Amino acid sequence: MKEYLLTAGPTPVPERVLLAMARPMLYHRSPAFTECLREVQEGLKWLLRTDQLPLIMTGSGTAAMDAAVSNFMRTGDKAIVIRGGKFGERWGRICQAYGIECVFIDVEWGKSVDAKAVAEALEKNSGVRAVYATACETSTATRHDVEAIGRVVRERDDVILCVDAITAIGVYDVPVDRWGLDVVCIGSQKALMLPPGLCGVAVSEKGWKAAERCNLPRFYLDLRAERRSQQKGETAFTPAVSLVVGLRESLRMIREETLEGVYMRHERLAKATRAAAGGLGLDLLSSSPVNSVTGIRMPPGVDGTAVVRQMQTRYGITIAGGQDHLKGKIVRIAHVGFFSEFDIITAISGLEMTLSDLGFGIRPGAGVAAAQATFAETRRT
Amino acid sequence: MKEYLLTAGPTPVPERVLLAMARPMLYHRSPAFTECLREVQEGLKWLLRTDQLPLIMTGSGTAAMDAAVSNFMRTGDKAIVIRGGKFGERWGRICQAYGIECVFIDVEWGKSVDAKAVAEALEKNSGVRAVYATACETSTATRHDVEAIGRVVRERDDVILCVDAITAIGVYDVPVDRWGLDVVCIGSQKALMLPPGLCGVAVSEKGWKAAERCNLPRFYLDLRAERRSQQKGETAFTPAVSLVVGLRESLRMIREETLEGVYMRHERLAKATRAAAGGLGLDLLSSSPVNSVTGIRMPPGVDGTAVVRQMQTRYGITIAGGQDHLKGKIVRIAHVGFFSEFDIITAISGLEMTLSDLGFGIRPGAGVAAAQATFAETRRT
Repeated sequence: MKEYLLTAGPTPVPERVLLAMARPMLYHRSPAFTECLREVQEGLKWLLRTDQLPLIMTGSGTAAMDAAVSNFMRTGDKAIVIRGGKFGERWGRICQAYGIECVFIDVEWGKSVDAKAVAEALEKNSGVRAVYATACETSTATRHDVEAIGRVVRERDDVILCVDAITAIGVYDVPVDRWGLDVVCIGSQKALMLPPGLCGVAVSEKGWKAAERCNLPRFYLDLRAERRSQQKGETAFTPAVSLVVGLRESLRMIREETLEGVYMRHERLAKATRAAAGGLGLDLLSSSPVNSVTGIRMPPGVDGTAVVRQMQTRYGITIAGGQDHLKGKIVRIAHVGFFSEFDIITAISGLEMTLSDLGFGIRPGAGVAAAQATFAETRRT
Repeated sequence: MKEYLLTAGPTPVPERVLLAMARPMLYHRSPAFTECLREVQEGLKWLLRTDQLPLIMTGSGTAAMDAAVSNFMRTGDKAIVIRGGKFGERWGRICQAYGIECVFIDVEWGKSVDAKAVAEALEKNSGVRAVYATACETSTATRHDVEAIGRVVRERDDVILCVDAITAIGVYDVPVDRWGLDVVCIGSQKALMLPPGLCGVAVSEKGWKAAERCNLPRFYLDLRAERRSQQKGETAFTPAVSLVVGLRESLRMIREETLEGVYMRHERLAKATRAAAGGLGLDLLSSSPVNSVTGIRMPPGVDGTAVVRQMQTRYGITIAGGQDHLKGKIVRIAHVGFFSEFDIITAISGLEMTLSDLGFGIRPGAGVAAAQATFAETRRT
C-alpha cells in the first residue's frame, strides 16, 4: 500500500534531501565538511534571524532541551515552567532531573499561556533564573506567544527565556534576537524537512552569561565545548554527517522558496485543515491553533484511537492521536515541513472515509470542499 | 576527482545501506518502526553475544560513553581509567566532568595495557567502583585486552567494567556476557557501516545493579528511561529513524557475510596493511596493532601532516594523521567497516605515490606487493 506520513515529526523528507544524504560519506575533519557546516551555520543564522552562532548537536530534540537546562542552571535554582501539554511537561521533568525547583504555570491543554501570568509568577517568586516555554505545543496543536513572554523576561537581567521552538522554526518567523529569546531549541525532523537525529541550540549573550554560573555536570551536551569547536567549523564530537549534509540541502530549498513563501504555505495548509474540520462539523482542540499541526476533537461516540488505526491500516495514512487524557479524544493532522495542498486533501479525504467507515454521519467531501475553498481564497496569483 | 574515504569513522557506507536510508520516513510510534527496532535489537544481541537488551541512542559514540559514566556512578566515586590515547583520555575527561575521582593507568601511546596493572590498581585503591577501558584505541591503532581485564574485574562484586568498544564491535568477536563486560559502548560509523549519529550501550545485570546507586543528574542520556521504552519496542525520544533503518540493513549484510567472515576480512586487511608498511620499510606505531586501523610511523624528515594533505588534495584519498604529540609523526589507514582488498591497495598505492612526491625514497610497488602477498597467503579457497 502506498504510505502517506502526516505526523508532526518525523515528517516527510523531500527526495532532494534524501538523495543528498545518500551521497558518499564525508570525513568530519575535512575542508569539505567544514564548508558544509559553515553553509549550515549561515543558513540557521538567517532562518533564526540571529547574530549568534547556532550550535548543532547530534541527538533528538530532547537533547537540545536537556542542554538548555544542564548548561544554564545551578543545582537548587528556581525556574518557571509553562506547562500546557506533553512538551511543557518535558521541560518540567528535565528541570526536576537536574534538581531545579520548578514554579509551574499550568495551562489548560489547548489553551495558550497569558504572558501576564509569567510576569506575575516572576513578581511572586524571587530568585527565578529561567523561564522554560514552548513556542508550538505539538501535543495540543497550540501556539504560545513567546514574543510577549520575551517582552516580560527581557526586563530581568538575571532571568533567561528558554524556548522549545522545535515545531515553530520554519513554520513562523521567530526573530530570535529581536524577541529576546535566550536559548532556542530546534530539531531536524520538523520544518527543516530532515530525518530526526540533529538538533540545535541558539544562545544569546545573556544566555552565555547565565551559563557561566552553571554548575551542573555534563559532557556530551556541553555547549561550551560545542561553541569552541563550531566557531572553528568543526563539531566537538563526530556529528551525524549525513544529516548535516541533508540540512544544507533543506536550507537551500527554504532559501529558494523564500521565508515568506514557506511561512505562507504553512499558514494556508493550517487554515485549510481547520476549515476542513469545520466543514465536517468537528471542533478544534485548541483556542490558539498552531500552523504546524491541527488537533481535531472527535465527536462523542467516535474513538480517536480507532480513527488513527483505521486510517493507517485501511488507507496507509499515518496521523497521530491524542496523548494522556486526550487519548482517543483528538486526532492530529500535521502540516509542518514538506507538505503541500494535496497532502492536506489526502488527509482530510482519508479522515472522511474513515469516519464514514466507523459509522459517524458526515457529509463525504464536505471537509475537502472547505479545504479547497481556503486554498482558492488564499492562493497568490 | 573520485574520492576514497579511509578514515576510522566515518567509514564508507555501502550503497545498499544508503538506499535503505533513502526510503520514505517512518513514524517512530508505528508498528513498522517497532518491527524494525526489534530486528535491530535481535541483531545487536547476536553481534554482541549478549542476553541483555542493547539500548540504542541518537548521538555520537561519545553520548554512549557519557551515559556509561552518568548512569552508573555517584558524585565523588572513584574509577580506574586506562589512558593510552585520545579515547582513554576522553573517559577521564567524562569522569572528571561528573566529579568522579580518577585513578589513571597511563599507558604509553601505542602500547597495550597489562591487565595486571588493573589488578594492582584495584588492590592499591580502595573504593573503586568502575574501570573504564578502551577495546580498540583508534588514536594509536592499538588493541587492549578487555577479556583479560574482564577476568580481573569480574572478581569484584562492587566494581563494573565499562568498555568503549566503538571500533571493536564488528571487527573482533567481543562476547560481552562471557567476558563479563558490564557496560559496552558502540557507535554506528565504524564496522556497523552507517553514517555517524547512532550509538548504543549494552548493560549487564551487574551494571544495572550498579546503576541503582547512581545519583548523577541526567535526562536525555538516562538509560533507565531508554530501557523501559526499548523493552516495549520504542525509544524514549524521537530516534534517528533513518539510521535505525540503515542499521537493520547493515546487520543483515553482516549476517549474510557471517560473523566469522567479517572478522576474517578485517584481519586480512589489517595484516596486509601492516605488511605493506613493512614492505616500504616503515614501522608501525603500535606494538599491539588493532584490526580496525593501522598507524604507520613516518620516517625522519617526512611530515605526516603533509602526507595526509597531499594524499587528499592530489589523489582524493582521505586518511587520518596523528593527534597531539603524534601529530605529523604517524598516518592512520583505516580498514574498519565496508572495506575490501582493493581499498587497501588503493590506500597503499596512494601512500607510495605521495611519499615519492615528497622526495622520500621508497621502492614504488613494494608496499602493494607486500599487501598482495598477504592476501594470497590468507585467501580462503
